[in-house]
Amino acid sequence: MAEDKGITAAKEDEFSEWYTQIIQKAELIEYTPVSGCLVFRPYSYEIWERVQAFLDQEFKKRGVKNAYFPLLIPESLLTKEKEHVEGFSPEVAWVTQAGNTPLSERLAIRPTSETIMYDTYRKWVQSHRDLPLKINQWCNVVRWEFKHAVPFLRTREFLWQEGHTCFATKDEADAEAHDILKLYAQAYEELYAVPVIMGRKSEKEKFAGALYTLSVETMLPNGKAIQCSTSHCLGQNFSKPFGIQFLDQKEQKQHVWQNSWGFTTRSIGIAIMTHSDDKGLVLAPAIAPIQAVVVPIIFEKTKDATIAACTEIKKQLAEFRVHVDARDEYTAGWKFNYWEMKGVPLRIEIGPKDLEKKQAVVMRRDTLKKTMVPLENLQHAISQELANMQKEMLVKARQRLQSQIITAETKEAFQKGIEEKKMVLAPFCGKPDCEEFIKEKMGGIKSITAPFDAKTPEKPCIHCNNKAEAFYYFAKSY
Amino acid sequence: MAEDKGITAAKEDEFSEWYTQIIQKAELIEYTPVSGCLVFRPYSYEIWERVQAFLDQEFKKRGVKNAYFPLLIPESLLTKEKEHVEGFSPEVAWVTQAGNTPLSERLAIRPTSETIMYDTYRKWVQSHRDLPLKINQWCNVVRWEFKHAVPFLRTREFLWQEGHTCFATKDEADAEAHDILKLYAQAYEELYAVPVIMGRKSEKEKFAGALYTLSVETMLPNGKAIQCSTSHCLGQNFSKPFGIQFLDQKEQKQHVWQNSWGFTTRSIGIAIMTHSDDKGLVLAPAIAPIQAVVVPIIFEKTKDATIAACTEIKKQLAEFRVHVDARDEYTAGWKFNYWEMKGVPLRIEIGPKDLEKKQAVVMRRDTLKKTMVPLENLQHAISQELANMQKEMLVKARQRLQSQIITAETKEAFQKGIEEKKMVLAPFCGKPDCEEFIKEKMGGIKSITAPFDAKTPEKPCIHCNNKAEAFYYFAKSY
Repeated sequence: MAEDKGITAAKEDEFSEWYTQIIQKAELIEYTPVSGCLVFRPYSYEIWERVQAFLDQEFKKRGVKNAYFPLLIPESLLTKEKEHVEGFSPEVAWVTQAGNTPLSERLAIRPTSETIMYDTYRKWVQSHRDLPLKINQWCNVVRWEFKHAVPFLRTREFLWQEGHTCFATKDEADAEAHDILKLYAQAYEELYAVPVIMGRKSEKEKFAGALYTLSVETMLPNGKAIQCSTSHCLGQNFSKPFGIQFLDQKEQKQHVWQNSWGFTTRSIGIAIMTHSDDKGLVLAPAIAPIQAVVVPIIFEKTKDATIAACTEIKKQLAEFRVHVDARDEYTAGWKFNYWEMKGVPLRIEIGPKDLEKKQAVVMRRDTLKKTMVPLENLQHAISQELANMQKEMLVKARQRLQSQIITAETKEAFQKGIEEKKMVLAPFCGKPDCEEFIKEKMGGIKSITAPFDAKTPEKPCIHCNNKAEAFYYFAKSY
Repeated sequence: MAEDKGITAAKEDEFSEWYTQIIQKAELIEYTPVSGCLVFRPYSYEIWERVQAFLDQEFKKRGVKNAYFPLLIPESLLTKEKEHVEGFSPEVAWVTQAGNTPLSERLAIRPTSETIMYDTYRKWVQSHRDLPLKINQWCNVVRWEFKHAVPFLRTREFLWQEGHTCFATKDEADAEAHDILKLYAQAYEELYAVPVIMGRKSEKEKFAGALYTLSVETMLPNGKAIQCSTSHCLGQNFSKPFGIQFLDQKEQKQHVWQNSWGFTTRSIGIAIMTHSDDKGLVLAPAIAPIQAVVVPIIFEKTKDATIAACTEIKKQLAEFRVHVDARDEYTAGWKFNYWEMKGVPLRIEIGPKDLEKKQAVVMRRDTLKKTMVPLENLQHAISQELANMQKEMLVKARQRLQSQIITAETKEAFQKGIEEKKMVLAPFCGKPDCEEFIKEKMGGIKSITAPFDAKTPEKPCIHCNNKAEAFYYFAKSY
């Protein structure tokens, strides 16, 4: 059942409260007695299904096959790659008992599946003919965060896909890591209408066990950066401890080069925060469960004709996801608010006067702008409106993102940018020690990514004055 | 990498060894260091994806929406329905620790999700207008069986869908429980080509917490019955302890009537056991990842032309799932064996002589029968062969199933049937005590189901001589 009341907090002033209201009132999330573990309600799960369908198809085009590996990982496997276990063990949920029997070895609920998958890959890869090996799984993972949960963004259980690939050469692994990164950026920009930045993580921020981590990042309207998705080149860091070797064409034994990459339900939260407003959710047409809602304006005398016309319109618009809200118990005004709260991209209003004039009122959720559309043009108009809305939402969000970015080549400019909640692009040495120092000194800011499109820095690292490795973004982040 | 050697155990003589070889050599399963938890390799996962796609579409037609509920269930929730917890707690995997911190309350990895879902449903159902509520989730579940694992059939983790619905009346719940049961039977018969029996479980064998359990059952070639899928009417057994109530049209508070129903990856194992033979896997065309493999017969002089012709054939057959095996390193004979082992429904052989005569040899995996087909008819012929194979596999399996069934109205006939590894249909009182007695006395046989299509018994229960409630099947079972 939907809440009767609208959003009572302003995005601008009380971002966190505003978000908490939206995700509940728009029926996206439900809390449970397990702290940090939430229900993905049908309305948010359907968004995920659309994103899954897109990515899954793209993976398959690239020769990736789906499989499923066990949820539970023995402790001895998880600890096989040193940096990896150090990164993950503080947040592992451990199974220690089954029925009334204590287990002889603790089992980790997968926080990610490198170790259980690569122990198996060892058996599958023998010859260069077995390469490349490209496997993906869609599954749940658990990371027992002790920080405050933020629905979608940081929860103890979340849903994702994890791709795990093996190649004969580093070049192939490099190329795929970049290719998948671009695909992830495409999913954000073309489906969610969320503008992103692509780049490479610092040594300190890379994935535990990776050779390097590429990432897609964005900045939210509240001035916090967020990591959207990552694509890791693992190098031979796992193939060596796990013994994944192949005979090359010269009959020499080689360790494979590996990548892993993941896209999570976090993306839903990022899209909600990016686009929604004080009236509620705003969804991009590409991922909206309902793209247009038809609301009849009902008067007793013309009721049947009006509802019949709405049903007819739904038929005409069969290529779109259209819902007719013909409920008796609510007024048209109540329905307008309800569907605005739910973020449906277009509203089509039909009343007796509209029917006389053979027209409908079409309202766009993002701009709240109304247009009169002759019924005979409706199909074309809806198609245009949805396409425009998809495009313009991205453009608008990108303008906002750009307004949140500044470049700083001095300490003072850097400091000022951070104080103004900007994402600051600055020359940086890339060293973990230096980054640790910045983090401590400046209230938890960290490097976000070294964007691919930045110039080579001429000036030294603005923090330690040593040679800069690249321009990096810095910001407060989730 | 595929095994070079074929299956070395006969289905007839060493069923279990035969099955173990098939699932490994056909690259369906991989073992892991976690006992009882297996990898679904891409070749079996793709079968699951097809079944998922079919069921998911059918659920959606019925107004069911997908969602996702947490993996972890607090002990206090799991224990809320008494019979339910008694049924499941002996096989629950418990999370007791996160990172280095002991949890204040143990968390169960879901063995099934009634309790976590219904605790939430309570918040969603208030009025008759919120009904029916129809939610499904596709997920993993863990049941820590202490019996020997049988891949697909009985593993500690498996994949499934679980549908959980609420209705205002028992009639609606009854109708849906039967409707879903029929859908499950359809998936077995029309996708897997596995013949099934529909019926109602005995009191002793019903789901822990259910009012009644409907089930789809079959008999495997080794003389063991197996439960394929179940559809439970939970009555108000959960809505009462969980407080799921609604105001009806007369403003009276009522408890909802509930169903839950599930379809699991067990189905893959049942299909493998039903159809495969001493050469390896046999897959029904509807669920086969590859429906036809094209094998070129290569001679050095005509190699290019032959491979080109194979590629051309793949294009012509674009509506089917076709793979051309043009690998250089294997002979055509090796490939024949390999694809027979993998259970691909049709093999299309093309050699230089075939090309001269504008024909191809088509072999059907189930019958191993070869046919010459003029290339110009190929598309039509493949379509026909696949359709016939799908149909005939079911017919053949149903004949075998029928040959495994007898009716017994005396103790002697019952005893003899069980000794001959039949599924025996007999009048039964339906009482748990009587069933317990039979199970102990007759080496673990149990009631399978009271089939819908049986007559009303005239004779008394053949075990206790009390009034028979219905004809029930009895057998040894998995």
